[in-house]
Amino acid sequence: MSVTAPEGFTAVGGSAGIKAAGVPDVAVVVTEDGGAVPAAGVFTSNLAAAAPVQVSRAHLQTTGGHAAGVILTSGNANAATGEPGRDAASRLCDAVAQGIDADPSEILVCQTGLIGIPFPMAAVGPHLARIVAARRGDAESGAAAARAIMTTDTKPKTALVRGDGFTVGAMAKGAAMLAPNMATMLALCTTDAAVNPARLQAALRAAVDVSFNIMTVDGCTSTNDTVLVLASGRAASPSLESLTAALAEVCTSLAEQMVDDAEGATKVSHVRVTGAESDAAAHVAARKVADSMLVQCSLNGEDPYWGRVVSELGSAGVGFDIDQVSVAYGGVVVCAGGVAVGHDAAAVKTHMSGRHIELTCDLGLGNGSAAVLGTDLGYGYIDENRTTS
Amino acid sequence: MSVTAPEGFTAVGGSAGIKAAGVPDVAVVVTEDGGAVPAAGVFTSNLAAAAPVQVSRAHLQTTGGHAAGVILTSGNANAATGEPGRDAASRLCDAVAQGIDADPSEILVCQTGLIGIPFPMAAVGPHLARIVAARRGDAESGAAAARAIMTTDTKPKTALVRGDGFTVGAMAKGAAMLAPNMATMLALCTTDAAVNPARLQAALRAAVDVSFNIMTVDGCTSTNDTVLVLASGRAASPSLESLTAALAEVCTSLAEQMVDDAEGATKVSHVRVTGAESDAAAHVAARKVADSMLVQCSLNGEDPYWGRVVSELGSAGVGFDIDQVSVAYGGVVVCAGGVAVGHDAAAVKTHMSGRHIELTCDLGLGNGSAAVLGTDLGYGYIDENRTTS
Repeated sequence: MSVTAPEGFTAVGGSAGIKAAGVPDVAVVVTEDGGAVPAAGVFTSNLAAAAPVQVSRAHLQTTGGHAAGVILTSGNANAATGEPGRDAASRLCDAVAQGIDADPSEILVCQTGLIGIPFPMAAVGPHLARIVAARRGDAESGAAAARAIMTTDTKPKTALVRGDGFTVGAMAKGAAMLAPNMATMLALCTTDAAVNPARLQAALRAAVDVSFNIMTVDGCTSTNDTVLVLASGRAASPSLESLTAALAEVCTSLAEQMVDDAEGATKVSHVRVTGAESDAAAHVAARKVADSMLVQCSLNGEDPYWGRVVSELGSAGVGFDIDQVSVAYGGVVVCAGGVAVGHDAAAVKTHMSGRHIELTCDLGLGNGSAAVLGTDLGYGYIDENRTTS
Repeated sequence: MSVTAPEGFTAVGGSAGIKAAGVPDVAVVVTEDGGAVPAAGVFTSNLAAAAPVQVSRAHLQTTGGHAAGVILTSGNANAATGEPGRDAASRLCDAVAQGIDADPSEILVCQTGLIGIPFPMAAVGPHLARIVAARRGDAESGAAAARAIMTTDTKPKTALVRGDGFTVGAMAKGAAMLAPNMATMLALCTTDAAVNPARLQAALRAAVDVSFNIMTVDGCTSTNDTVLVLASGRAASPSLESLTAALAEVCTSLAEQMVDDAEGATKVSHVRVTGAESDAAAHVAARKVADSMLVQCSLNGEDPYWGRVVSELGSAGVGFDIDQVSVAYGGVVVCAGGVAVGHDAAAVKTHMSGRHIELTCDLGLGNGSAAVLGTDLGYGYIDENRTTS
């Protein structure tokens, strides 16, 4: 079950020739009746934002936070493609709008793939009317849409949460150690909740902050990262807290699926920092540790080299006193008061041999805490990313 | 020729049992007569600064920028070792001071190796008097000192510059893709120039900023990084500019030797950013590109994937307009105005197949420029760093 689970949405996945012939590369998700509904988006902070990001941002602004549908393509990021790229992204919206009798500004667009390659709009265009016409509201159509946005993903990523009187469905692609090559993390949520655009935007922003934004692989912020939500209003009107919680649950599931699908990675790290001067400081420190190439290498080697962790904490730019710090793997404290302490080495070894490694750092300074989800660094990351061919 | 080249210094390299028996692991460099001379230091900004960094900083403060000698050890970083570590670092200074009849505060200390392992001072102590007594002022002693501070370095690193009436000699260890494992970049310069401590500190800081500080491998700032200089005053009194230039030349040579000795790396990258809003902005952008795991993977694969470079520039946090950016490999422009441009692909391929890759990014916004020296990311880095055993 995916984006078609909530009431009021249809979806389709199809092939338009962006990838090799016959491979699904276009997904379209639109409201059942083609009418615009409240919509919200969170986009990459990268100043080299791709054409689809620019177009979607503009469309949401034009409509005051409404949309009738989204088109998502995979195989070409349409980033660093200049004016022809922006024109292509607009024409993708035009085609969907025409197919459902909506205004082009009511269509949002997401694209993922290689950066800097002109988007083959002339080849893609003729396929779109056929694809849009094939949309349906059943589960299989939602699943097909999720498959069509995969790049190096090994499996489609979907999530479904049933709230109190409303439902949130979602699909995503990327990222983990795969997406960086393909340049993007995309997620589209649908809900039948009745909510106005401002509340929907607030709920989405809050949900993204506690899900996708605590996931890291290599510290790179892509040109195309986009998370969208459309709300059909067919069901109940939840509280902001209730809607945020449901969106956060969906987004967290998708983020975990992304990290877990990192073919290049052999480990998922759960880095938790406690005792920081603030939650913000804890987040900065946790991200510094999770992003560290040296720490990632140690995780790959299942080596509890906590000295590197302490070194990263000390250079994270937040409050730090080495005499107060402690570090634990899987709950086994290996460093306390800034120095090595006797511990059950066999327990640490067993914990680190698993796929999930819990690395907890207590700074001993305050009550701030945060967690970040990451990976190890192994040959696979290099294999995926050393060449684009 | 190394630290004994300038007038007024003696040196020795010896073995004190920190590493396996017989492997050199202690270097001592002291003034010929044991008297204190002007000295300056630049230390890591890491708040988890190792014991030797804490002790050397305190000693320089106590003496008002003077020192009679330096002891450097390899094989154990004496970092994250608490009060016993600070005590050990002090006792290393005591031993040298006793051997040359100086005050302990006149001795500086540098250490490199694994973090978090108690320093074996009881085993090391008994060797020190013998080692200090063997110091000499000849070239071979300087060379032996340089060899004694090596960790995973494949060759000793020394440099010599003859200024107008004075000489600067130097030795260093690390770092590149090797040092992160061993936790440190250390450099010791000597000069016979006549200069007061304040000018010496100013010259060293300026020299470090244009040499070691434009070198990057993985963005990690170690707990032990230290650059020291001692000035015997036996020769001429150079202008600040002249002294800075000589120190910068020596430090640049050492930095290049470090990057070039990166066994794990197969490429040296020369990332240059021009057209930035300021030199500071250019430096931030160049470092973002050079530190990028994705860009480093592309260099490893000899793949001119400039899209990633543009993405890093766009997320560097400095002024950026994608429509103004251009990217070139070995002087061959592959992206202009933010989009792909026709170019001599064979020339790019040939350039990238070499050991040194020049990656130039013009932001098209102003006159700021900066260059950073980096490496690629290949299997070797992971092999070096995945386990400490």
